[in-house]
Amino acid sequence: MDIRAKIGERIRELRDKLNLSQKDLAYQADLDRSYIAGVEKGQRNISIVNIEKISNALNMNLNDFFNDAKFNS
Amino acid sequence: MDIRAKIGERIRELRDKLNLSQKDLAYQADLDRSYIAGVEKGQRNISIVNIEKISNALNMNLNDFFNDAKFNS
Repeated sequence: MDIRAKIGERIRELRDKLNLSQKDLAYQADLDRSYIAGVEKGQRNISIVNIEKISNALNMNLNDFFNDAKFNS
Repeated sequence: MDIRAKIGERIRELRDKLNLSQKDLAYQADLDRSYIAGVEKGQRNISIVNIEKISNALNMNLNDFFNDAKFNS
């Protein structure tokens, strides 16, 4: 699976776990909702600054964010 | 510390551990040496695709790459 798709899937899983809408997450991460939607669909080659914004908005540090089987290969 | 600087520091540490030059790493990651130099100086808002290229060139998956105290905050 392409890394963009893995990142998108991970964000969606974590967002769902927190019962946040894309709009909520976008607001907390100070990003556009349409950008979040594109990232979750695996359509964005997201930068590290935006990954950190999103993971912080999901109450996670980057170590925890990438601590998932998806990122073991 | 800014996330770009943390990424740069992590790459430099791992590259030094493998006794690779920036030129070697750039070749294996299929990126420009000047780009690697900029990333290591914390000057680049690197994308996830390029982080994966570099971590693979350092024989690491992303889980291992981010498994460092720098990324715990």
